[in-house]
Amino acid sequence: MDIQNLLDDIVASVQPLLGQGEVADYIPQLASVNAKQFGISVAMRSGEVYSSGDADVPFSIQSISKVFALALVLARDGDSIWKRVFREPSGNPFNSLVQLESEDGIPRNPFINAGALVVADRLLSVTGHPASAVRELLRQESGNPRIDADADVAASELLHSHRNTSLAHFLASYGNLENPVEEVLEAYVKQCALAMSCTDLALAGRFLAANGARADGTPLLSRSQTKRINAVMLTCGTYDAAGEFAYRVGLPGKSGVGGGIVAVVPEHCTISVWSPGLGRSGNSLAGVAALDEFTTRTGLSIF
Amino acid sequence: MDIQNLLDDIVASVQPLLGQGEVADYIPQLASVNAKQFGISVAMRSGEVYSSGDADVPFSIQSISKVFALALVLARDGDSIWKRVFREPSGNPFNSLVQLESEDGIPRNPFINAGALVVADRLLSVTGHPASAVRELLRQESGNPRIDADADVAASELLHSHRNTSLAHFLASYGNLENPVEEVLEAYVKQCALAMSCTDLALAGRFLAANGARADGTPLLSRSQTKRINAVMLTCGTYDAAGEFAYRVGLPGKSGVGGGIVAVVPEHCTISVWSPGLGRSGNSLAGVAALDEFTTRTGLSIF
Amino acid sequence: MDIQNLLDDIVASVQPLLGQGEVADYIPQLASVNAKQFGISVAMRSGEVYSSGDADVPFSIQSISKVFALALVLARDGDSIWKRVFREPSGNPFNSLVQLESEDGIPRNPFINAGALVVADRLLSVTGHPASAVRELLRQESGNPRIDADADVAASELLHSHRNTSLAHFLASYGNLENPVEEVLEAYVKQCALAMSCTDLALAGRFLAANGARADGTPLLSRSQTKRINAVMLTCGTYDAAGEFAYRVGLPGKSGVGGGIVAVVPEHCTISVWSPGLGRSGNSLAGVAALDEFTTRTGLSIF
Amino acid sequence: MDIQNLLDDIVASVQPLLGQGEVADYIPQLASVNAKQFGISVAMRSGEVYSSGDADVPFSIQSISKVFALALVLARDGDSIWKRVFREPSGNPFNSLVQLESEDGIPRNPFINAGALVVADRLLSVTGHPASAVRELLRQESGNPRIDADADVAASELLHSHRNTSLAHFLASYGNLENPVEEVLEAYVKQCALAMSCTDLALAGRFLAANGARADGTPLLSRSQTKRINAVMLTCGTYDAAGEFAYRVGLPGKSGVGGGIVAVVPEHCTISVWSPGLGRSGNSLAGVAALDEFTTRTGLSIF
Repeated sequence: MDIQNLLDDIVASVQPLLGQGEVADYIPQLASVNAKQFGISVAMRSGEVYSSGDADVPFSIQSISKVFALALVLARDGDSIWKRVFREPSGNPFNSLVQLESEDGIPRNPFINAGALVVADRLLSVTGHPASAVRELLRQESGNPRIDADADVAASELLHSHRNTSLAHFLASYGNLENPVEEVLEAYVKQCALAMSCTDLALAGRFLAANGARADGTPLLSRSQTKRINAVMLTCGTYDAAGEFAYRVGLPGKSGVGGGIVAVVPEHCTISVWSPGLGRSGNSLAGVAALDEFTTRTGLSIF
Repeated sequence: MDIQNLLDDIVASVQPLLGQGEVADYIPQLASVNAKQFGISVAMRSGEVYSSGDADVPFSIQSISKVFALALVLARDGDSIWKRVFREPSGNPFNSLVQLESEDGIPRNPFINAGALVVADRLLSVTGHPASAVRELLRQESGNPRIDADADVAASELLHSHRNTSLAHFLASYGNLENPVEEVLEAYVKQCALAMSCTDLALAGRFLAANGARADGTPLLSRSQTKRINAVMLTCGTYDAAGEFAYRVGLPGKSGVGGGIVAVVPEHCTISVWSPGLGRSGNSLAGVAALDEFTTRTGLSIF
Repeated sequence: MDIQNLLDDIVASVQPLLGQGEVADYIPQLASVNAKQFGISVAMRSGEVYSSGDADVPFSIQSISKVFALALVLARDGDSIWKRVFREPSGNPFNSLVQLESEDGIPRNPFINAGALVVADRLLSVTGHPASAVRELLRQESGNPRIDADADVAASELLHSHRNTSLAHFLASYGNLENPVEEVLEAYVKQCALAMSCTDLALAGRFLAANGARADGTPLLSRSQTKRINAVMLTCGTYDAAGEFAYRVGLPGKSGVGGGIVAVVPEHCTISVWSPGLGRSGNSLAGVAALDEFTTRTGLSIF
Repeated sequence: MDIQNLLDDIVASVQPLLGQGEVADYIPQLASVNAKQFGISVAMRSGEVYSSGDADVPFSIQSISKVFALALVLARDGDSIWKRVFREPSGNPFNSLVQLESEDGIPRNPFINAGALVVADRLLSVTGHPASAVRELLRQESGNPRIDADADVAASELLHSHRNTSLAHFLASYGNLENPVEEVLEAYVKQCALAMSCTDLALAGRFLAANGARADGTPLLSRSQTKRINAVMLTCGTYDAAGEFAYRVGLPGKSGVGGGIVAVVPEHCTISVWSPGLGRSGNSLAGVAALDEFTTRTGLSIF
């Protein structure tokens, strides 16, 4: 199959969906994005990239950053993080406190906000500058040295962070933060404010399709660690729609409220999509449809 | 790799785990099983079977039957079942009523008891004799015409079915059962009481590794339906430990309180394990360890 | 103050509310009641009765029966029932299973359905015929030998009892029923189907205002037991609006979905009201307003 | 009855309970209190006071301050606070976030921490110095000008306030705080750190037994407002044991983790007790026992 043609077809077929769904509006910087944009990129394990649509427009990766933060913690600190965060789907909204309360301050998984705060906290302990560490990883893997956090997004997130601040203090009340709440929140917000394009994102995620090998061939993660991140993405990567995503798309994936999603075909490639309109579960409406079409037409699926 | 040698190795390595964990004891027929048994079988898509340990001892498949019931409903009735049951992990125990109440009587997935009752109800509507339909499927796929429900287990389950009866009436109170509660419960209990060996089970599940093709080559399910069952197994197949199972084993799987588990390597093979001692989440302790070793040593994993 | 004038005033002032709210419609017998009816009665401890409006029209007392069943269990069996049911407000709907699950099958209080089933179960063990026992109590205290269960209501309730059947099996699954589920449900439904007028109800409840003394002067309950029933009524008697009822009315009270409420001024009198239209929490809209006016104008309140 | 003799009797009878239960230990200032102390005071509506035991030892009133803060908000701002906080029992721990999440940031009642933060927020808006306003009220009503906040307790609470900070940000995330989170928390913590003796407390609460009249005869609250505070105390004043407290004691009351409780006999008197050892629900073990004995022997009860 000709991948470029396929991506162009997909761009055409999702046009009726563009502008549908809800654009995240809790901060003005996200609300003001043109909702009719759509981009898609595929990065082969070998390094080839195919892109179509608005694949070179940078967008706010938001929760997708959680995958890279987790990878860095596992790379530098090993499996000890799993004592502080579970690996199970939550069955509750991503910013819920309910389960956290009944499970004594141990978040259900590293991709709900509470779990990502724990990971950010550990990355802060290990690196001193977690957002910079994530940024450097993204720059090196994508080969794009201009990837950076959007300062306006970060500043605005901090002004609208009551829920995450509440989560962080809640974690702290159970003794599950090592650093001061304010520092953890700042690191977390900066990490989420990183902006990059579909092309950047597909390239940056290649290690997930390459048994943990970085772009330069050196290992970031072991094969086993890589498989395990993919497993967590599949069961927990798309909010309370992980079952639906596995059912429709059949690949490990991680979404963000900015409208991006990165998906992984283990051993083969990564696929990134972006379109700001979100479906009811907070995942990009056109993005999920595009991935559905991609896997249906290529036959690529882990199942 | 020599599969037979590998299975023999695994039988040796799980010996220290046998007798650990808790054997299901809510009915005497399960409680009285010798806890130190362990069996494992691998059925290749081509039909070859490898077995070791107590792989020919029949055991009560219990919740594993839910996969076969779901396959039959999809085969005969298509996707309409998904209007009556979701496909998301629950984050709660398999027999919980909490989420059912907050989600208006739509069970989270077809593998928690509430969802399996809805599937059994639909199979009853479609076939008239759901337990027989499941039994016939198992007999034909395994080639073992002696597979049958254990009448003592079924009778005993009915005497200890207050929780499932409660679930069924709860579903009925939301209008989510088509048949009388008593008939649905009887069908469900008989289906769960089916007994078969690891070898039978690995053979019977082959269609999940064969894009839906039955042992005789005819299609039971479409390729897409098969992938989707595997996706639901991965996200929801092992009670509230689906994330952990995906993380450790990396394959779609479905477990039962009788201590059996069936796992699927799409396009390749099915693996079945059985050992009665259950871990905290209700999955066979030695069984999960065996599958972990199997995937680690073969490198077979979907991630 | 002239009580008769006051009651007549109240009947006049609630007219604008009649027909508002929702009439219980889960069974046709309740749904077909003329929603514009309103009755009020006051029974002095001494035996005098004042009535106005539709005070002599019999209505289905439904959950109000729970008070009399509880009184009989305490009278005949003492405090042991409190091992099987708590005395705390639930913070959840009257027919919820959530809290029951997290608290191991011990209902929060005797006035939510689960708790009332436990009381009915115990009354069945103690008397053999719990609905008859409640009926005899009501007849003797009110002096009206024609009080009886409405057979159509009882039959219809049984046909629409999936939720209560679910609750009963749930209790049974925790070992918190002594009798077969079917017998407990039948007793409970018959007890709830008892029909009587406001005048009957005010008279029948007098023992709650008389330190436990029956109409004939003999003790039904001790002073302490009586106070305690009143305490449970105040904190748990009006579904999830007990706080609001205490705030507005300031008296112990028990409501039913038939639109009746009985309230108690300890040492003084009982007041009963009836109007079928229910507010959001399931309590009679005009009934609560009438009690509010009664306590405001008389200054009678326990606070 | 001779009240002084009765109080002396009660002091004697609770001796075996002193030292039982758990002293609050989340801050060192509370943990270090001598657990074997017990005091009791009764203040008649007329102004007479009877005391026994350690009735003149100041203790940290903690949550009891919530009653006085609520009284001040109602006195100065009327009923508008009820748009921001409900009046229903919660059925959950005092510092739980669960119900707050399912009810969109409206706390269940003004006596759980979330509700008290909303009240403190409003008092801050109305007075500018809420802790001072509460302190002045307590000083004037008790006639003790030395009542003050314990600065060490306040400072220590702030250092251990992650849970309350989490609650406050959670409220803010729903738009249910008017002032900055930090200012609300500081006001709240200072108010809870007020220290006073049983004698002070009984005197200070007299307006609750006097239809809202202050010690100098001027009105603080209307009769109706006073009754309503008493109603909220009865249904919500003693954490998740309000039903048990109503059942055993039969009076409106408010407890604090410092081991104090104030109870009200409307129109008659207030009773205050103090002993640091707490029962499972967080109410003073000896304090509840003493109030139980007091109401049993005097026959004073609202039921």
